[in-house]
Amino acid sequence: MKVYLDNNATTMVDPLVVEVMQPFFSEIYGNPNSLHKFGTASHPALSKAIDQMYKALNARDSDDIVFTSCATESNNWVLKSIFADHIVSGDKNHIITTEVEHPSVLAACRALEKEGAKVTYLPVNSEGVVEPHVVRSFITDKTALVSVMWASNETGMINPIKEIGEICKEKGVLFHSDAVQAIGKIPVDLQDVHVDFVSMSAHKFHGPKGVGALYIRNSQPLSPLLHGGEHMGGRRSGTLNVPYIVAMGKAIELATTNIEEKMASIRAKRDRLEDALLELSDTFVVGNRKNRTPNTILISIRGVEGEGMLWDLNNGQIGASTGSACASEDLQANTVMLAIGADSELAHTGIRLSLSRFTTDSEIDYTIAHFKKAVARLRAISSSFAKVGPTPGGESKECELHHH
Amino acid sequence: MKVYLDNNATTMVDPLVVEVMQPFFSEIYGNPNSLHKFGTASHPALSKAIDQMYKALNARDSDDIVFTSCATESNNWVLKSIFADHIVSGDKNHIITTEVEHPSVLAACRALEKEGAKVTYLPVNSEGVVEPHVVRSFITDKTALVSVMWASNETGMINPIKEIGEICKEKGVLFHSDAVQAIGKIPVDLQDVHVDFVSMSAHKFHGPKGVGALYIRNSQPLSPLLHGGEHMGGRRSGTLNVPYIVAMGKAIELATTNIEEKMASIRAKRDRLEDALLELSDTFVVGNRKNRTPNTILISIRGVEGEGMLWDLNNGQIGASTGSACASEDLQANTVMLAIGADSELAHTGIRLSLSRFTTDSEIDYTIAHFKKAVARLRAISSSFAKVGPTPGGESKECELHHH
Repeated sequence: MKVYLDNNATTMVDPLVVEVMQPFFSEIYGNPNSLHKFGTASHPALSKAIDQMYKALNARDSDDIVFTSCATESNNWVLKSIFADHIVSGDKNHIITTEVEHPSVLAACRALEKEGAKVTYLPVNSEGVVEPHVVRSFITDKTALVSVMWASNETGMINPIKEIGEICKEKGVLFHSDAVQAIGKIPVDLQDVHVDFVSMSAHKFHGPKGVGALYIRNSQPLSPLLHGGEHMGGRRSGTLNVPYIVAMGKAIELATTNIEEKMASIRAKRDRLEDALLELSDTFVVGNRKNRTPNTILISIRGVEGEGMLWDLNNGQIGASTGSACASEDLQANTVMLAIGADSELAHTGIRLSLSRFTTDSEIDYTIAHFKKAVARLRAISSSFAKVGPTPGGESKECELHHH
Repeated sequence: MKVYLDNNATTMVDPLVVEVMQPFFSEIYGNPNSLHKFGTASHPALSKAIDQMYKALNARDSDDIVFTSCATESNNWVLKSIFADHIVSGDKNHIITTEVEHPSVLAACRALEKEGAKVTYLPVNSEGVVEPHVVRSFITDKTALVSVMWASNETGMINPIKEIGEICKEKGVLFHSDAVQAIGKIPVDLQDVHVDFVSMSAHKFHGPKGVGALYIRNSQPLSPLLHGGEHMGGRRSGTLNVPYIVAMGKAIELATTNIEEKMASIRAKRDRLEDALLELSDTFVVGNRKNRTPNTILISIRGVEGEGMLWDLNNGQIGASTGSACASEDLQANTVMLAIGADSELAHTGIRLSLSRFTTDSEIDYTIAHFKKAVARLRAISSSFAKVGPTPGGESKECELHHH
């Protein structure tokens, strides 16, 4: 049996999504900007995809949703253009983000620091969550933008986006959220929250890799990142990737229709897996599961090095992760776990398991059995665990990791 | 019969290309950056695609070819990062480009002018070609970059890239070429020319829309445009679009294998079409066909407004263009034709016909017949042509358009 439990890294494209994009490769292949029938033939499908996006996110007609090549582009676009528009060509100098953002936000912020921006990287609490009062306390009259991820790729923890949005609105500060790990996993209603810019990526909700979008509240100004042929009303140039835009519309529709039911089904499997793994001694799961995306477990197993565990799972045809795939070529401690106060050993033993709506009960059964055997084997050969032995009383918990 | 003659705007994806990408949607769908088998399973196909790119372009192992989302991204990347690296953080202040570049180069340059760059937009000669001595005459010790398109999207005219490259090398100035309209149409050998950066796009050579690349000679430094998870060695972040990268490799292989034969076949059809259309009185084709991509005709028909002609062709199921699809929503005079010295009437009567290796002889026959009928009909109702009548002696020519 093969079990893919790395859906926070990327997902299988839903076969229904693969199907809808097919006609746009070799049949309806004209450039949608062309005036002839070969070009305009794609317009109904593009309109449908746009409608699917607006409906899924509850966006208003006065808002913009602009397709990009990925959420990395969307995140870079917002950060760099807010820097250009409000810091270089404005009287602001400050951006607020968090220590636990996706690398595309963190690396873009570091690049902007070199160009003169002041960036505050907010800490998270022991649950891995950004607290609204912390955001409030760092906003000054020089703050151009607050950027806080909707849900964490590593822990699945959901930030209080509504409360942070209210604070930003009250303070008159622009608010961006990287919602890559929220859309398709939990309800995202853009009328319910006040957020100016929202980044998203199709390949996290069973669409293809290589297409994303940026939501822009009330179609407000934002300089382009890609200048050129005035595609998408001049917001993002480059010939439209028709097959993938059509695919993204279908994928978001499939992911968000009856999302409560889908969440319940995924959560039941996730909880069963999590409960079973917590039966092992000295295991720790990051964050209260009530405030977590229903598909995610970040578990630490004392005495079991994350990379070793990953290797063992891989040998059992189980795909998991020690954290972000975007940083997985480095054998480093999980930076998010360090940020929430885990000790270095725990941060080296984190394993992320992320389910999808395609995960089956038998896959969960198989994973539980294989995981337990792997832990026993790895602990038997672990020098640190063998020396120290299980923690006295060795309980397992889904809990806060305490600062030390 | 449907006849697609707008291949400079975009092309049909070759069915063989569609086929090779299919396994990477729902079967081999892991993130290539992941350490598990779901991720690494895509590596052989990615390696193959990269090999196909290097081979097609005759790149060296020491060069970089970085996949992007489109040539618009590649062009923006080079221009903006050279500006950041050599003008903002350097002692240069000057970029040289041409009046007839693609909008993604022109718009990016205009944006950089607002940020303080000095940009020279070189004129082209009456054939639409950039002359090397003109490039040389504008290079100063403050010039950071010369950016000249390899071949024109509108006229098909091929620039003397080798000569311009030698001048840039001699002067110690970086040289970028947007080769979107050259690759797959004419031989592009990156050992034969000295060019530092080359932009390309798969959808111009029967690959999908939404994937491009940037060639970087000798893997020289260039700040990223998209910061993030250190994909592609930190050059371009964002989860790899595996299906489209695999597709681009296959597409460039198919387009460049036996390219001389493919060129001869396309040229024969193009020349036959061009000769037939030039039988009409008062018609003008831009540029000597020997120095033109073998698939392109930009023809002006005195007395026939371009948009009207396009409409008539469209009614006959023939897809053509009045110029760049990237600017085709504006009913303006063809700016490239104005740049080469056409009078305003001619610039409003330009029709671009661009063939591909899928264009058939019967499609050419059909187009000739329909085109001639359309011209007769439109000239009959043309107020300007009716008043003035055909030019005395009314010859047709494939010629320079004289400056006036």
